[in-house]
Amino acid sequence: MNDQQNLMIKVVLDNWYSSVKRSDAIFNSLTDEQLLQEAAPGRNRGAYLMGHLTAVHDAMLPLLGLGESLHPELLEPYVKNADSKTDNHTPQQLRQFWSEVNEAVASKFNALTTDEWLQKHTSVSAEDFAKEPHRNRLNVLLSRFGHLEYHRGQVAFLKEKTD
Amino acid sequence: MNDQQNLMIKVVLDNWYSSVKRSDAIFNSLTDEQLLQEAAPGRNRGAYLMGHLTAVHDAMLPLLGLGESLHPELLEPYVKNADSKTDNHTPQQLRQFWSEVNEAVASKFNALTTDEWLQKHTSVSAEDFAKEPHRNRLNVLLSRFGHLEYHRGQVAFLKEKTD
Repeated sequence: MNDQQNLMIKVVLDNWYSSVKRSDAIFNSLTDEQLLQEAAPGRNRGAYLMGHLTAVHDAMLPLLGLGESLHPELLEPYVKNADSKTDNHTPQQLRQFWSEVNEAVASKFNALTTDEWLQKHTSVSAEDFAKEPHRNRLNVLLSRFGHLEYHRGQVAFLKEKTD
Repeated sequence: MNDQQNLMIKVVLDNWYSSVKRSDAIFNSLTDEQLLQEAAPGRNRGAYLMGHLTAVHDAMLPLLGLGESLHPELLEPYVKNADSKTDNHTPQQLRQFWSEVNEAVASKFNALTTDEWLQKHTSVSAEDFAKEPHRNRLNVLLSRFGHLEYHRGQVAFLKEKTD
């Protein structure tokens, strides 16, 4: 791997960590009461979105071949099902899971080499990967970066209006 | 440039184009009346967000050294100022600008080589770039991809609720 390739991975990772950090800042700025409100009338609650993002980040661990999920029990209430509008977990629990999972993911990410970022993820076969080499770990990370930003834009609606 | 580097640029561009396509699909699914509504109570209207995204994408042209903006007049009402809640442009005009700008951007992007994606953007000096080589065109694209996803998540709230 040459410097240019390492640089490209760094640029993507920097954008990912920046998005996680900004999401952290929003979640930390919201009270538990605000987190339990809907981002817009009839839409997902902040707590659901926090559980959803945590579950999706956690699921990157097995998808990228980096280990087991820490909280696979989050998939059912926050990914496979719509917002139940009742508390599956308290805001306090969700805040803890969110931090745990993002720390575990960062720790695994930081140990990956540039070469490893360009290897296939676990839900594509070796045969398909030979034909479609873009189905690599990096592509999953980019997709999850977009996903986090998408929902971060929604969570931002829970903040107090300043005007 | 080797195959791996070309592949990395392809993966980023694919994610960008996919996000533009999904945004297109949402905007096309909204009526003009829906576009003029606020994404959430007291928040930006769909039309403002459409103007905002168009202006920011358009501004990538000079920022990346790819030419002049097509509609620099959009910066004042949609970037420098908050949503006026009055029509600076009709939804029809905004839809046209949105398409024009994204087509112009795609046409310039498709002509860039992998090497050129790793060159500096125009708002960083050669001296600073020597010390901070991550301040390249690719980094701007990643940031704009995140920005588009952030607001796409908000625009999605204007769609009819299906449940």
